[in-house]
Amino acid sequence: MKAAQSTAGKRIPFDTDQLDRLLDNAGIDVLVVSSKHNIQYLLGGYRFFFFENMDAIGTSRYLPALVYRKGRPEQSVYVGCAMENFEKELGKLWPPTLDLGTTGSQAAMRQAVQHVKRLGDGIRTIGVESAFLPADAEGVLRHGLSNCAIVDAVVPLERLRAVKTAEEIQYLRQASEHVVDAMRTAFARCVPGISKLEVAETLRREEVNRGLVFDYCLITAGTSLNRAPSDQRLAAGDIISLDSGGNFKGYIGDLCRMAILGTPDRELEDILGFVDEVQQAARKPIRKGVRGGDIIAAGNKVVETSPHGPYTHYIAHGMGLVSHEAPRLMNTPRLSYDGYDTERPLESGMVISVETTVQHPKRGFIKLEDTVLVTENGHEGLGDTARGWNKAGH
Amino acid sequence: MKAAQSTAGKRIPFDTDQLDRLLDNAGIDVLVVSSKHNIQYLLGGYRFFFFENMDAIGTSRYLPALVYRKGRPEQSVYVGCAMENFEKELGKLWPPTLDLGTTGSQAAMRQAVQHVKRLGDGIRTIGVESAFLPADAEGVLRHGLSNCAIVDAVVPLERLRAVKTAEEIQYLRQASEHVVDAMRTAFARCVPGISKLEVAETLRREEVNRGLVFDYCLITAGTSLNRAPSDQRLAAGDIISLDSGGNFKGYIGDLCRMAILGTPDRELEDILGFVDEVQQAARKPIRKGVRGGDIIAAGNKVVETSPHGPYTHYIAHGMGLVSHEAPRLMNTPRLSYDGYDTERPLESGMVISVETTVQHPKRGFIKLEDTVLVTENGHEGLGDTARGWNKAGH
Repeated sequence: MKAAQSTAGKRIPFDTDQLDRLLDNAGIDVLVVSSKHNIQYLLGGYRFFFFENMDAIGTSRYLPALVYRKGRPEQSVYVGCAMENFEKELGKLWPPTLDLGTTGSQAAMRQAVQHVKRLGDGIRTIGVESAFLPADAEGVLRHGLSNCAIVDAVVPLERLRAVKTAEEIQYLRQASEHVVDAMRTAFARCVPGISKLEVAETLRREEVNRGLVFDYCLITAGTSLNRAPSDQRLAAGDIISLDSGGNFKGYIGDLCRMAILGTPDRELEDILGFVDEVQQAARKPIRKGVRGGDIIAAGNKVVETSPHGPYTHYIAHGMGLVSHEAPRLMNTPRLSYDGYDTERPLESGMVISVETTVQHPKRGFIKLEDTVLVTENGHEGLGDTARGWNKAGH
Repeated sequence: MKAAQSTAGKRIPFDTDQLDRLLDNAGIDVLVVSSKHNIQYLLGGYRFFFFENMDAIGTSRYLPALVYRKGRPEQSVYVGCAMENFEKELGKLWPPTLDLGTTGSQAAMRQAVQHVKRLGDGIRTIGVESAFLPADAEGVLRHGLSNCAIVDAVVPLERLRAVKTAEEIQYLRQASEHVVDAMRTAFARCVPGISKLEVAETLRREEVNRGLVFDYCLITAGTSLNRAPSDQRLAAGDIISLDSGGNFKGYIGDLCRMAILGTPDRELEDILGFVDEVQQAARKPIRKGVRGGDIIAAGNKVVETSPHGPYTHYIAHGMGLVSHEAPRLMNTPRLSYDGYDTERPLESGMVISVETTVQHPKRGFIKLEDTVLVTENGHEGLGDTARGWNKAGH
């Protein structure tokens, strides 16, 4: 990241030149950002604590808004709710103009409209996050700025976030390590007779007690391929998969590890060995400058030549504040922009999630998911432990 | 709630007659519901676990949609993502038609449009939650159903939720009791020198370890009126307020309790005594059939005649899945519908949050927030303990 700029004595916590270039390419004059993850990014880690989990309040919802004009960071305005004055007092907000008195999505956007109008003439195109801007708020924006085009800015914003800073990498490392560590404890507490719901709840508490915010737990047991926490009870000999996301300061650790209530037989060792082989092959090419698609190709090659191929699913994708983000690699595109980065070079500081899943017709669900940091000369696994058959109940 | 109906062998978990009346009054033919809280309500407690905390995925977001046609619950359709097939297998979803393969907000709404179209002619008005429907999804809806008017359905939906079932009351009771219990433990761990951030983190973990999902913690210490968790360190003699929300299965416990690192002097006893007096006066009229505004009037009367009046703020509001919901009482309206229920009778099963806040110019922030259930013959406080000066560090 380039050297921080400052306005009104505060450090601007992101690369304004890069954002300006991205906005220029997208033809955007002014951003009105409203998602929690992009607000957090542009405000240098700030996430208003009161609405970190909740959204709804009264007949409306909390909606923050950051107004950013291309090339004029000093004209930035943050619109928030009255309680955010506590955070202002603590000096946590860098934008030179703070408008902290709104309640509800329409009120927030009415203020944003006023601030955009004050920026003067020459503003033609407003970039928003259409999937994170409520319809009523967008209505206020369209009505108030009827001379402007409103376009989606999700892609330039995620491009901005693709290369992580040292601080972000440290958060991702901590999240990953704590998720795996919490999994070890949850596996250790497994005994025949407890339910998948109980294991998932143990994992949730173990993640929180390590300082994470729990996001989710997918869990299988025995030969079932159903990954929902449920009343299904663990039995002796069962294999168990835990695939969980937990975030540290918003940065998601998302990994999958395996355990068994007993001892793995040769076939189980073979299958997890194959999964690991795909994972290792996928990692091998990872380093700065390599084409993103090489990660996909390397994993696919192992899958395609294996007898396990027909029931194996392999993907790789960027991650950070959002569980699937740039670089966009994937294998089976479901959303627009999946695959967008396969022809581009990886950059040092990108973080890739690599996932290989076997849905074995007889033995059940066997998966590893790893988090791999792209470095100058290679790569580094984050939370890169407990990747074999963990002994459950020990 | 009226006796449950059934369709395709499944129990419908809400009062369809009441919803139909509410929709009839609002002139709505079909609901397309997309907020997590109303999806949960209409699906009988179902909240898809993977996206309970997160929203963003890829360049879009998770968006569930429930299509409900007035008077025709058997035509209901639930649109979700592919992973929700795990929940379908577990029999958790009552709608007769399940469409579980979408990824992203626009894809979900394209499916919803198809399902509305299949309902045939005669559908003129679609009710949505404008603050919880993303702009891009609303665009798909408007384009796909261009012959229909799209109106807001937040108010009829919150009317439907205003009277709680025995099960919901039990969840609110558990949430409230666990929040207060967690506060007692957090107070007990306070010592001079620890920061407000550390106290808030202790409270978060204590709530989670009691089975709650942590929502937020507002905290003050000493004479400061700043309620953000921060590096401010506790000192001997400090008063401490903890105002926290934590939910059990989505139902929010939201209470405020006081503690002191020492012994309260006469003035502190007097101020908290006054706060309690307002709280007790506000509760006194609460029972089925009483006009909602009587709660506001009773509290105001104590505030207005007290020397503490000028720096005291008193409000009351309904609560449940949303921290401020029907019945809408309030005192200082900020959103439309605040005060909407002051002239209506309270109903048994409504749940009211009562809050009295003193921002004392010399002594600091002193507040109680209680949760009060309206019953046939009176009321019941939920989590109604630890309401005096708790001894911190003990």
